[in-house]
Amino acid sequence: MKTRDRILMGSLKLFNERGERNVSTNHIAADLDISPGNLYYHFRNKQEIVFELFKRYATEVGAFMAVPPDRQLTFTDKIHYFEATFKSMWEYRFLHRDLAHLLAEDDGLRKAYQSFSQQTLRSGKSVLAGLRDAGLMEIDDEQMDALMLNIWVLVTSWASFLQAISVASDQEPALSEAKIKRGIYQLIALAEPFATPGHEEDVLALKAEYLGKGVSDPFTLFR
Amino acid sequence: MKTRDRILMGSLKLFNERGERNVSTNHIAADLDISPGNLYYHFRNKQEIVFELFKRYATEVGAFMAVPPDRQLTFTDKIHYFEATFKSMWEYRFLHRDLAHLLAEDDGLRKAYQSFSQQTLRSGKSVLAGLRDAGLMEIDDEQMDALMLNIWVLVTSWASFLQAISVASDQEPALSEAKIKRGIYQLIALAEPFATPGHEEDVLALKAEYLGKGVSDPFTLFR
Repeated sequence: MKTRDRILMGSLKLFNERGERNVSTNHIAADLDISPGNLYYHFRNKQEIVFELFKRYATEVGAFMAVPPDRQLTFTDKIHYFEATFKSMWEYRFLHRDLAHLLAEDDGLRKAYQSFSQQTLRSGKSVLAGLRDAGLMEIDDEQMDALMLNIWVLVTSWASFLQAISVASDQEPALSEAKIKRGIYQLIALAEPFATPGHEEDVLALKAEYLGKGVSDPFTLFR
Repeated sequence: MKTRDRILMGSLKLFNERGERNVSTNHIAADLDISPGNLYYHFRNKQEIVFELFKRYATEVGAFMAVPPDRQLTFTDKIHYFEATFKSMWEYRFLHRDLAHLLAEDDGLRKAYQSFSQQTLRSGKSVLAGLRDAGLMEIDDEQMDALMLNIWVLVTSWASFLQAISVASDQEPALSEAKIKRGIYQLIALAEPFATPGHEEDVLALKAEYLGKGVSDPFTLFR
Protein backbone atom coordinates (compact mmCIF):
# COMPACT_ATOMS: atom_id res chain seq x y z
CA MET A 1 0.00 0.00 0.00
CA LYS A 2 1.28 3.51 -0.81
CA THR A 3 2.39 5.61 2.16
CA ARG A 4 -0.38 8.13 1.48
CA ASP A 5 -3.02 5.40 1.73
CA ARG A 6 -1.37 3.88 4.77
CA ILE A 7 -1.56 7.27 6.49
CA LEU A 8 -5.23 7.60 5.61
CA MET A 9 -6.14 4.11 6.77
CA GLY A 10 -4.05 4.46 9.94
CA SER A 11 -5.64 7.81 10.75
CA LEU A 12 -9.12 6.45 10.17
CA LYS A 13 -8.42 3.57 12.55
CA LEU A 14 -7.10 5.86 15.29
CA PHE A 15 -9.83 8.50 14.80
CA ASN A 16 -12.49 5.79 15.07
CA GLU A 17 -10.96 4.23 18.16
CA ARG A 18 -10.05 7.34 20.14
CA GLY A 19 -11.96 10.21 18.55
CA GLU A 20 -10.31 12.65 16.14
CA ARG A 21 -9.73 15.25 18.87
CA ASN A 22 -7.55 12.85 20.85
CA VAL A 23 -5.29 11.90 17.94
CA SER A 24 -2.41 14.09 16.72
CA THR A 25 -0.33 13.75 13.55
CA ASN A 26 2.49 12.58 15.82
CA HIS A 27 0.30 9.77 17.13
CA ILE A 28 -0.50 8.76 13.58
CA ALA A 29 3.13 8.76 12.47
CA ALA A 30 4.21 6.80 15.55
CA ASP A 31 1.45 4.25 15.05
CA LEU A 32 2.54 3.69 11.43
CA ASP A 33 6.21 3.72 12.36
CA ILE A 34 7.02 6.55 9.95
CA SER A 35 8.66 9.91 10.71
CA PRO A 36 6.46 13.01 11.23
CA GLY A 37 8.36 14.53 8.30
CA ASN A 38 7.24 11.73 6.04
CA LEU A 39 3.63 12.29 7.13
CA TYR A 40 3.91 16.03 6.45
CA TYR A 41 5.28 15.28 3.00
CA HIS A 42 1.85 13.77 2.19
CA PHE A 43 -0.46 15.93 4.29
CA ARG A 44 0.11 19.47 5.49
CA ASN A 45 -1.89 18.89 8.66
CA LYS A 46 -4.57 16.77 10.34
CA GLN A 47 -7.33 18.81 8.70
CA GLU A 48 -6.19 17.63 5.28
CA ILE A 49 -6.36 14.03 6.43
CA VAL A 50 -9.86 14.53 7.84
CA PHE A 51 -10.96 16.19 4.62
CA GLU A 52 -9.61 13.36 2.48
CA LEU A 53 -11.35 10.78 4.69
CA PHE A 54 -14.58 12.74 4.43
CA LYS A 55 -14.29 12.69 0.62
CA ARG A 56 -13.87 8.92 0.67
CA TYR A 57 -16.89 8.58 2.96
CA ALA A 58 -18.94 10.82 0.65
CA THR A 59 -17.84 8.80 -2.39
CA GLU A 60 -18.81 5.55 -0.69
CA VAL A 61 -22.25 6.88 0.27
CA GLY A 62 -22.74 8.34 -3.21
CA ALA A 63 -21.95 4.95 -4.74
CA PHE A 64 -24.60 2.98 -2.89
CA MET A 65 -27.28 5.64 -2.48
CA ALA A 66 -28.55 5.34 -6.02
CA VAL A 67 -31.31 3.64 -7.98
CA PRO A 68 -30.32 1.19 -10.72
CA PRO A 69 -31.26 2.88 -14.02
CA ASP A 70 -32.36 -0.26 -15.83
CA ARG A 71 -34.70 -2.11 -13.48
CA GLN A 72 -37.12 -1.83 -10.59
CA LEU A 73 -35.95 -2.08 -7.00
CA THR A 74 -36.53 -5.30 -5.07
CA PHE A 75 -36.83 -6.17 -1.40
CA THR A 76 -33.24 -7.44 -1.59
CA ASP A 77 -32.15 -3.97 -2.71
CA LYS A 78 -33.92 -2.51 0.31
CA ILE A 79 -31.88 -4.77 2.60
CA HIS A 80 -28.71 -3.73 0.78
CA TYR A 81 -29.45 -0.08 1.44
CA PHE A 82 -29.67 -0.84 5.16
CA GLU A 83 -26.44 -2.87 5.06
CA ALA A 84 -24.50 -0.29 3.09
CA THR A 85 -25.70 2.47 5.42
CA PHE A 86 -24.51 0.47 8.40
CA LYS A 87 -21.15 -0.20 6.75
CA SER A 88 -20.50 3.47 6.07
CA MET A 89 -21.65 4.51 9.56
CA TRP A 90 -19.36 1.94 11.11
CA GLU A 91 -16.28 2.51 8.94
CA TYR A 92 -16.35 6.28 9.35
CA ARG A 93 -17.88 6.51 12.79
CA PHE A 94 -15.49 9.24 13.94
CA LEU A 95 -17.06 11.69 11.47
CA HIS A 96 -20.46 12.05 13.09
CA ARG A 97 -19.25 11.48 16.61
CA ASP A 98 -18.19 15.10 16.91
CA LEU A 99 -19.14 16.72 13.64
CA ALA A 100 -19.70 20.17 15.16
CA HIS A 101 -16.05 20.27 16.15
CA LEU A 102 -14.80 19.12 12.73
CA LEU A 103 -16.96 21.66 10.92
CA ALA A 104 -15.96 24.49 13.25
CA GLU A 105 -12.30 23.83 12.46
CA ASP A 106 -12.54 23.84 8.67
CA ASP A 107 -14.71 26.06 6.48
CA GLY A 108 -13.92 23.99 3.42
CA LEU A 109 -15.21 20.86 5.13
CA ARG A 110 -18.32 22.76 6.22
CA LYS A 111 -19.13 23.69 2.63
CA ALA A 112 -18.36 20.19 1.37
CA TYR A 113 -20.55 18.70 4.11
CA GLN A 114 -23.45 20.90 3.10
CA SER A 115 -23.22 19.82 -0.55
CA PHE A 116 -22.94 16.23 0.58
CA SER A 117 -26.07 16.59 2.75
CA GLN A 118 -28.02 18.10 -0.11
CA GLN A 119 -26.84 15.50 -2.60
CA THR A 120 -27.54 12.58 -0.27
CA LEU A 121 -30.98 13.80 0.75
CA ARG A 122 -31.82 14.10 -2.93
CA SER A 123 -30.54 10.66 -3.87
CA GLY A 124 -32.09 9.18 -0.72
CA LYS A 125 -35.41 10.52 -1.89
CA SER A 126 -34.93 8.87 -5.28
CA VAL A 127 -34.37 5.59 -3.47
CA LEU A 128 -37.59 6.02 -1.47
CA ALA A 129 -39.43 6.96 -4.66
CA GLY A 130 -37.93 3.89 -6.35
CA LEU A 131 -39.17 1.67 -3.51
CA ARG A 132 -42.61 3.22 -3.88
CA ASP A 133 -42.62 2.74 -7.68
CA ALA A 134 -41.68 -0.89 -7.13
CA GLY A 135 -44.70 -1.32 -4.84
CA LEU A 136 -42.54 -1.87 -1.75
CA MET A 137 -43.63 1.30 0.05
CA GLU A 138 -46.89 3.18 0.35
CA ILE A 139 -46.14 6.80 1.12
CA ASP A 140 -47.18 10.21 -0.18
CA ASP A 141 -44.76 12.95 -1.26
CA GLU A 142 -45.03 14.94 1.95
CA GLN A 143 -44.48 11.87 4.11
CA MET A 144 -41.51 10.97 1.95
CA ASP A 145 -39.80 14.32 2.57
CA ALA A 146 -40.40 14.00 6.30
CA LEU A 147 -39.23 10.39 6.39
CA MET A 148 -36.09 11.17 4.40
CA LEU A 149 -35.18 13.99 6.75
CA ASN A 150 -35.83 11.81 9.81
CA ILE A 151 -33.62 9.08 8.35
CA TRP A 152 -30.90 11.64 7.71
CA VAL A 153 -31.02 13.04 11.25
CA LEU A 154 -31.02 9.55 12.73
CA VAL A 155 -28.09 8.27 10.66
CA THR A 156 -25.94 11.37 11.11
CA SER A 157 -26.75 11.76 14.83
CA TRP A 158 -26.56 8.18 16.02
CA ALA A 159 -22.83 8.24 16.86
CA SER A 160 -23.09 11.48 18.83
CA PHE A 161 -26.18 10.18 20.62
CA LEU A 162 -24.21 7.07 21.68
CA GLN A 163 -21.34 9.29 22.73
CA ALA A 164 -23.60 11.54 24.81
CA ILE A 165 -25.18 8.72 26.80
CA SER A 166 -21.95 6.83 27.46
CA VAL A 167 -20.62 7.68 30.89
CA ALA A 168 -17.33 5.93 31.46
CA SER A 169 -14.86 6.18 28.60
CA ASP A 170 -12.73 3.37 30.04
CA GLN A 171 -15.50 0.78 29.77
CA GLU A 172 -16.70 -0.71 26.52
CA PRO A 173 -16.28 1.83 23.70
CA ALA A 174 -19.27 4.09 23.19
CA LEU A 175 -19.27 3.23 19.48
CA SER A 176 -19.14 -0.56 19.41
CA GLU A 177 -20.32 -2.41 16.33
CA ALA A 178 -23.40 -3.67 18.18
CA LYS A 179 -24.40 -0.15 19.12
CA ILE A 180 -24.00 1.18 15.60
CA LYS A 181 -26.07 -1.79 14.41
CA ARG A 182 -28.80 -0.76 16.79
CA GLY A 183 -28.94 2.49 14.81
CA ILE A 184 -29.88 0.47 11.73
CA TYR A 185 -32.60 -1.25 13.75
CA GLN A 186 -33.93 2.22 14.51
CA LEU A 187 -33.76 3.07 10.80
CA ILE A 188 -35.72 -0.06 9.88
CA ALA A 189 -38.30 0.93 12.51
CA LEU A 190 -38.58 4.38 10.92
CA ALA A 191 -39.35 2.98 7.48
CA GLU A 192 -41.49 0.03 8.60
CA PRO A 193 -44.86 1.81 8.91
CA PHE A 194 -44.71 2.61 5.20
CA ALA A 195 -43.86 -0.90 4.02
CA THR A 196 -46.50 -2.63 1.91
CA PRO A 197 -47.62 -6.09 3.10
CA GLY A 198 -45.70 -9.13 1.95
CA HIS A 199 -42.33 -9.21 3.68
CA GLU A 200 -43.31 -9.20 7.37
CA GLU A 201 -41.20 -12.24 8.28
CA ASP A 202 -38.14 -10.95 6.45
CA VAL A 203 -38.46 -7.64 8.27
CA LEU A 204 -38.73 -9.42 11.62
CA ALA A 205 -35.57 -11.41 10.87
CA LEU A 206 -33.79 -8.28 9.71
CA LYS A 207 -34.78 -6.38 12.85
CA ALA A 208 -33.62 -9.23 15.07
CA GLU A 209 -30.25 -9.19 13.33
CA TYR A 210 -29.72 -5.49 13.93
CA LEU A 211 -31.25 -5.38 17.38
CA GLY A 212 -28.51 -7.78 18.49
CA LYS A 213 -30.35 -9.27 21.49
CA GLY A 214 -28.11 -10.43 24.29
CA VAL A 215 -25.37 -8.00 23.34
CA SER A 216 -24.33 -5.59 26.07
CA ASP A 217 -25.76 -2.27 24.95
CA PRO A 218 -26.63 1.15 26.28
CA PHE A 219 -30.34 0.65 26.09
CA THR A 220 -30.80 -0.15 29.69
CA LEU A 221 -32.01 3.41 29.20
CA PHE A 222 -35.56 2.19 29.36
CA ARG A 223 -35.20 0.43 32.68
CA MET B 1 -35.12 39.72 39.78
CA LYS B 2 -32.28 38.51 41.97
CA THR B 3 -28.77 38.91 40.58
CA ARG B 4 -28.29 35.16 40.46
CA ASP B 5 -31.37 34.76 38.29
CA ARG B 6 -30.40 37.71 36.13
CA ILE B 7 -27.05 36.05 35.48
CA LEU B 8 -28.74 32.79 34.54
CA MET B 9 -31.26 34.42 32.22
CA GLY B 10 -28.60 36.67 30.66
CA SER B 11 -26.30 33.70 30.10
CA LEU B 12 -29.08 31.65 28.56
CA LYS B 13 -29.87 34.46 26.14
CA LEU B 14 -26.24 34.88 25.07
CA PHE B 15 -25.57 31.12 24.87
CA ASN B 16 -28.65 30.69 22.66
CA GLU B 17 -27.74 33.58 20.40
CA ARG B 18 -24.02 33.02 19.98
CA GLY B 19 -23.33 29.46 21.14
CA GLU B 20 -21.91 28.70 24.58
CA ARG B 21 -18.37 28.35 23.24
CA ASN B 22 -18.37 31.95 22.02
CA VAL B 23 -19.56 33.50 25.30
CA SER B 24 -17.25 34.14 28.26
CA THR B 25 -18.17 35.11 31.82
CA ASN B 26 -16.81 38.56 30.96
CA HIS B 27 -19.26 38.84 28.09
CA ILE B 28 -22.07 37.86 30.43
CA ALA B 29 -21.09 40.37 33.10
CA ALA B 30 -20.69 43.15 30.52
CA ASP B 31 -24.05 42.37 28.95
CA LEU B 32 -25.75 42.58 32.37
CA ASP B 33 -23.77 45.65 33.35
CA ILE B 34 -22.38 44.01 36.49
CA SER B 35 -18.75 43.52 37.52
CA PRO B 36 -17.03 40.17 36.83
CA GLY B 37 -16.44 40.00 40.60
CA ASN B 38 -20.16 40.15 41.23
CA LEU B 39 -20.71 37.33 38.73
CA TYR B 40 -18.01 35.20 40.40
CA TYR B 41 -19.69 35.79 43.77
CA HIS B 42 -22.65 33.81 42.40
CA PHE B 43 -20.94 31.31 40.10
CA ARG B 44 -17.39 30.03 40.28
CA ASN B 45 -17.15 29.64 36.51
CA LYS B 46 -19.11 29.24 33.28
CA GLN B 47 -19.46 25.50 33.85
CA GLU B 48 -21.53 26.17 36.96
CA ILE B 49 -23.84 28.41 34.98
CA VAL B 50 -24.24 25.78 32.25
CA PHE B 51 -24.95 23.13 34.86
CA GLU B 52 -27.60 25.26 36.57
CA LEU B 53 -29.26 25.98 33.21
CA PHE B 54 -29.21 22.29 32.39
CA LYS B 55 -30.95 21.55 35.71
CA ARG B 56 -33.67 24.06 34.89
CA TYR B 57 -34.09 22.52 31.45
CA ALA B 58 -34.32 19.03 32.97
CA THR B 59 -36.88 20.26 35.52
CA GLU B 60 -38.99 21.84 32.77
CA VAL B 61 -38.93 18.66 30.68
CA GLY B 62 -39.67 16.53 33.75
CA ALA B 63 -42.69 18.70 34.53
CA PHE B 64 -44.44 18.27 31.20
CA MET B 65 -43.30 14.76 30.27
CA ALA B 66 -45.78 13.03 32.56
CA VAL B 67 -49.16 11.36 32.45
CA PRO B 68 -51.97 12.84 34.58
CA PRO B 69 -52.61 10.28 37.34
CA ASP B 70 -56.37 10.77 37.52
CA ARG B 71 -57.66 10.65 33.95
CA GLN B 72 -57.06 9.35 30.44
CA LEU B 73 -55.04 11.34 27.92
CA THR B 74 -56.85 13.25 25.19
CA PHE B 75 -55.91 14.47 21.73
CA THR B 76 -55.48 17.93 23.28
CA ASP B 77 -52.88 16.48 25.63
CA LYS B 78 -51.05 15.05 22.64
CA ILE B 79 -50.86 18.54 21.10
CA HIS B 80 -49.61 19.91 24.40
CA TYR B 81 -46.76 17.40 24.45
CA PHE B 82 -45.67 18.64 21.04
CA GLU B 83 -45.95 22.28 22.13
CA ALA B 84 -44.07 21.77 25.38
CA THR B 85 -41.33 19.86 23.57
CA PHE B 86 -40.96 22.71 21.12
CA LYS B 87 -40.87 25.28 23.93
CA SER B 88 -38.08 23.48 25.78
CA MET B 89 -36.09 22.91 22.57
CA TRP B 90 -36.38 26.57 21.69
CA GLU B 91 -35.69 28.06 25.13
CA TYR B 92 -32.62 25.93 25.74
CA ARG B 93 -31.42 25.50 22.17
CA PHE B 94 -27.77 26.08 23.07
CA LEU B 95 -27.70 22.81 25.03
CA HIS B 96 -28.08 20.39 22.14
CA ARG B 97 -26.33 22.59 19.61
CA ASP B 98 -22.94 21.40 20.81
CA LEU B 99 -23.64 18.88 23.52
CA ALA B 100 -20.49 16.83 22.89
CA HIS B 101 -18.41 19.86 23.82
CA LEU B 102 -20.40 20.61 26.99
CA LEU B 103 -20.21 16.99 28.14
CA ALA B 104 -16.49 16.75 27.39
CA GLU B 105 -15.86 19.74 29.64
CA ASP B 106 -17.75 18.55 32.70
CA ASP B 107 -17.99 15.02 34.07
CA GLY B 108 -20.73 16.03 36.49
CA LEU B 109 -22.85 17.29 33.62
CA ARG B 110 -22.16 14.07 31.69
CA LYS B 111 -23.49 11.97 34.58
CA ALA B 112 -26.48 14.25 35.09
CA TYR B 113 -27.24 14.14 31.37
CA GLN B 114 -27.24 10.36 31.40
CA SER B 115 -29.71 10.22 34.30
CA PHE B 116 -31.84 12.80 32.55
CA SER B 117 -31.83 10.74 29.32
CA GLN B 118 -32.84 7.62 31.19
CA GLN B 119 -35.54 9.39 33.16
CA THR B 120 -36.98 11.14 30.11
CA LEU B 121 -36.99 8.03 27.93
CA ARG B 122 -38.87 6.24 30.70
CA SER B 123 -41.44 8.98 31.20
CA GLY B 124 -41.73 9.46 27.43
CA LYS B 125 -42.62 5.80 27.17
CA SER B 126 -45.32 6.25 29.81
CA VAL B 127 -46.77 9.04 27.72
CA LEU B 128 -46.82 6.82 24.61
CA ALA B 129 -48.40 4.03 26.65
CA GLY B 130 -50.94 6.53 27.98
CA LEU B 131 -51.83 7.58 24.45
CA ARG B 132 -52.23 3.94 23.51
CA ASP B 133 -54.41 3.21 26.56
CA ALA B 134 -56.58 6.17 25.61
CA GLY B 135 -57.07 4.69 22.13
CA LEU B 136 -55.12 7.47 20.43
CA MET B 137 -52.27 5.27 19.21
CA GLU B 138 -52.04 1.74 17.90
CA ILE B 139 -48.56 0.44 18.55
CA ASP B 140 -46.96 -2.68 20.04
CA ASP B 141 -44.34 -2.66 22.81
CA GLU B 142 -41.38 -3.18 20.51
CA GLN B 143 -42.49 -0.43 18.16
CA MET B 144 -42.99 1.82 21.16
CA ASP B 145 -39.39 1.38 22.32
CA ALA B 146 -38.10 2.08 18.82
CA LEU B 147 -40.37 5.09 18.37
CA MET B 148 -39.41 6.54 21.73
CA LEU B 149 -35.72 6.24 20.93
CA ASN B 150 -36.22 7.79 17.49
CA ILE B 151 -38.12 10.68 19.06
CA TRP B 152 -35.30 11.16 21.55
CA VAL B 153 -32.58 11.17 18.91
CA LEU B 154 -34.57 13.58 16.74
CA VAL B 155 -35.35 16.04 19.55
CA THR B 156 -31.84 16.03 21.00
CA SER B 157 -30.08 16.15 17.60
CA TRP B 158 -32.20 18.68 15.76
CA ALA B 159 -30.21 21.75 16.85
CA SER B 160 -26.87 20.18 15.92
CA PHE B 161 -28.31 19.02 12.60
CA LEU B 162 -29.39 22.60 11.84
CA GLN B 163 -25.98 23.84 12.89
CA ALA B 164 -24.18 21.32 10.67
CA ILE B 165 -26.08 22.24 7.51
CA SER B 166 -25.87 26.01 7.99
CA VAL B 167 -23.02 27.43 5.99
CA ALA B 168 -22.77 31.14 6.59
CA SER B 169 -22.93 32.21 10.21
CA ASP B 170 -23.52 35.84 9.26
CA GLN B 171 -26.81 35.10 7.53
CA GLU B 172 -30.02 34.16 9.31
CA PRO B 173 -29.18 32.30 12.55
CA ALA B 174 -28.92 28.54 12.15
CA LEU B 175 -31.35 28.06 15.03
CA SER B 176 -34.27 30.36 14.17
CA GLU B 177 -37.66 29.71 15.72
CA ALA B 178 -39.03 28.54 12.37
CA LYS B 179 -36.27 25.98 12.01
CA ILE B 180 -36.76 24.60 15.51
CA LYS B 181 -40.48 24.39 14.75
CA ARG B 182 -39.68 22.31 11.72
CA GLY B 183 -38.18 19.80 14.14
CA ILE B 184 -41.60 19.43 15.76
CA TYR B 185 -43.10 18.87 12.32
CA GLN B 186 -40.61 16.02 11.95
CA LEU B 187 -41.66 14.70 15.36
CA ILE B 188 -45.33 14.74 14.39
CA ALA B 189 -44.40 12.86 11.20
CA LEU B 190 -42.59 10.24 13.31
CA ALA B 191 -45.65 9.57 15.46
CA GLU B 192 -48.27 9.89 12.72
CA PRO B 193 -48.16 6.34 11.32
CA PHE B 194 -49.24 5.03 14.72
CA ALA B 195 -52.17 7.40 15.20
CA THR B 196 -55.60 5.82 15.26
CA PRO B 197 -58.18 7.25 12.83
CA GLY B 198 -60.29 10.20 13.91
CA HIS B 199 -58.14 13.29 14.04
CA GLU B 200 -56.76 13.51 10.48
CA GLU B 201 -57.81 17.12 9.94
CA ASP B 202 -56.41 18.26 13.26
CA VAL B 203 -53.11 16.59 12.46
CA LEU B 204 -53.00 18.27 9.05
CA ALA B 205 -53.59 21.67 10.66
CA LEU B 206 -50.97 20.95 13.30
CA LYS B 207 -48.41 19.91 10.70
CA ALA B 208 -49.09 23.02 8.63
CA GLU B 209 -48.48 25.15 11.71
CA TYR B 210 -45.10 23.59 12.44
CA LEU B 211 -44.01 23.25 8.82
CA GLY B 212 -44.19 27.05 8.58
CA LYS B 213 -44.66 27.27 4.82
CA GLY B 214 -43.29 30.41 3.22
CA VAL B 215 -40.72 30.89 5.97
CA SER B 216 -37.13 31.01 4.79
CA ASP B 217 -35.68 27.71 5.90
CA PRO B 218 -32.76 25.39 5.24
CA PHE B 219 -34.81 22.75 3.53
CA THR B 220 -33.91 23.78 0.06
CA LEU B 221 -31.90 20.65 0.83
CA PHE B 222 -34.24 18.64 -1.30
CA ARG B 223 -33.89 20.81 -4.40
